[in-house]
Amino acid sequence: MSETATVREVGLRDGLQMISTFFPTDAKLAWIRAELEAGVKDIEVCSFVPPKNIPQFADAVAVAEASVAMPGLRPSALVPNLKGAQRAVATGMPELHFVLSVSEEHNLRNVQRTVQQSVDEFRAVVELARAQSFPVRVSGALATALGCTIAGPVDPGRVVELAHILVEAGADELSVADTVGYANPAQTRRLFEEVGRAVAGRIPVAAHFHDTRGLGLANVYAAVEAGVRLFDASLAGLGGCPYAPGASGNIVTEDLVFLLESMGLSTGIDLGRLVEVRRIVAQHLPDETLYGQIAKAGPPKGFARAA
Amino acid sequence: MSETATVREVGLRDGLQMISTFFPTDAKLAWIRAELEAGVKDIEVCSFVPPKNIPQFADAVAVAEASVAMPGLRPSALVPNLKGAQRAVATGMPELHFVLSVSEEHNLRNVQRTVQQSVDEFRAVVELARAQSFPVRVSGALATALGCTIAGPVDPGRVVELAHILVEAGADELSVADTVGYANPAQTRRLFEEVGRAVAGRIPVAAHFHDTRGLGLANVYAAVEAGVRLFDASLAGLGGCPYAPGASGNIVTEDLVFLLESMGLSTGIDLGRLVEVRRIVAQHLPDETLYGQIAKAGPPKGFARAA
Repeated sequence: MSETATVREVGLRDGLQMISTFFPTDAKLAWIRAELEAGVKDIEVCSFVPPKNIPQFADAVAVAEASVAMPGLRPSALVPNLKGAQRAVATGMPELHFVLSVSEEHNLRNVQRTVQQSVDEFRAVVELARAQSFPVRVSGALATALGCTIAGPVDPGRVVELAHILVEAGADELSVADTVGYANPAQTRRLFEEVGRAVAGRIPVAAHFHDTRGLGLANVYAAVEAGVRLFDASLAGLGGCPYAPGASGNIVTEDLVFLLESMGLSTGIDLGRLVEVRRIVAQHLPDETLYGQIAKAGPPKGFARAA
Repeated sequence: MSETATVREVGLRDGLQMISTFFPTDAKLAWIRAELEAGVKDIEVCSFVPPKNIPQFADAVAVAEASVAMPGLRPSALVPNLKGAQRAVATGMPELHFVLSVSEEHNLRNVQRTVQQSVDEFRAVVELARAQSFPVRVSGALATALGCTIAGPVDPGRVVELAHILVEAGADELSVADTVGYANPAQTRRLFEEVGRAVAGRIPVAAHFHDTRGLGLANVYAAVEAGVRLFDASLAGLGGCPYAPGASGNIVTEDLVFLLESMGLSTGIDLGRLVEVRRIVAQHLPDETLYGQIAKAGPPKGFARAA
């Protein structure tokens, strides 16, 4: 099979955002460089939230500027609002991930806006992106699309409705996120099939899963079956789940690469070199749990990269 | 959806077999009773291997006899050969799991027989079962069906061939096992679809997955998609992987139940009560790692048993 899939590293953003230990700027850049050398070309390198909210991202400008200058890297940054987008494009950042929650309650708590206000702000971000002298892609990320810790179940019809709205508003990518690890694979497959129909191939659809309840990679497989070929993950599953001690957070990049490659979906990533990058994380966050099975067990005998 | 699925606990056999600390007989029975009370009716309670090989199963007769006497329980036992089957039926055991490896190298190492010799012995076990004064079911378990630590990749055509042979030989169930955690979901789905066609609904097909490389539950979902409704699992993923320190072994019963129930497949198992049973394991094996995400994170808000 000559099919490919894209793995996007989000550990430097989603993995680090709940970790109070500051990960030094030089180490962040070393991490990005090491993943790039392992073949991970898509990396969400930082978040342009107000630094007073999350001191971990106080160096967002420095990390963004250095990332933008790395040959071969496709860096991206999370922006929670227009102001964050303005800061991001000022660094030359070519891809912005604008997050809004499908759950009204979650959006209010996360970005202090109604969903409608976030949609309006998304339009302003797209306008800002189009006004730059260099190409800036804007991804619309739908958080809590498969369940919410505050509201509980989330209506898939509302996800599809918001997908339509973001596509019409000019999104260059749609990202659908199981922010809190609630999804099951049957639900995942149905939702991504519906979103896929709504988007109708106009822009790529990314999937963002958490492994909080152990179903992260099962959901990836379900999304693959629904046609998704772009996945977020965090090296070593960094960050865990802030609401469940001991439970993991983002799916593990190394295990995701193993899953995709083992199914014949070429990622362009060298699994052995990727596993080595865990050392950088371990060195600077000695108290964090590093998740992931393939780093412990190694690949199967006879396993070869699909590439 | 009113569909059901069966979860079979194999922790007392596959979970315990590599653990040198003897789990006291009374505690084994307390574990079995507690799972039965949580709704787990199918439990592989012991292995009739020679006690000198695995001292953990020195009490197999006592565990088997007590299990056979428990109202509502459907106990089963692993038998590696005819002698084990003879010991098992002498206790009144109504279901025998006869294991042979698809990989010739693995079978030689595991039971010191060629695959052909194991097939011949399987026929003898079926004959023994039919000669009893009470009904005895015989399951043919195909180990290393999705890969082998010695031989590497395993030919799916050989799995299908052995499936045919075991069905013709009188198997009451076929179990297909990823003994060493090598499988990926695309491979799993293809293999179980092929085996399903070979068996053609004549007997149930069970799936037995290990989570050594993190894909255990993804493989469960793939097998569900291929029509499988009977799964082995081990409470707390007990046992780990003997060849990979820190890596998990069997898929976790609690997480499997969560996966199935969340997809609307009713298991008849009370997830909360099942999680409580981990205490018995923790009490008697304080040095073992207890795996499992749902025990740490709890079910999603609004989650209800499908039943």
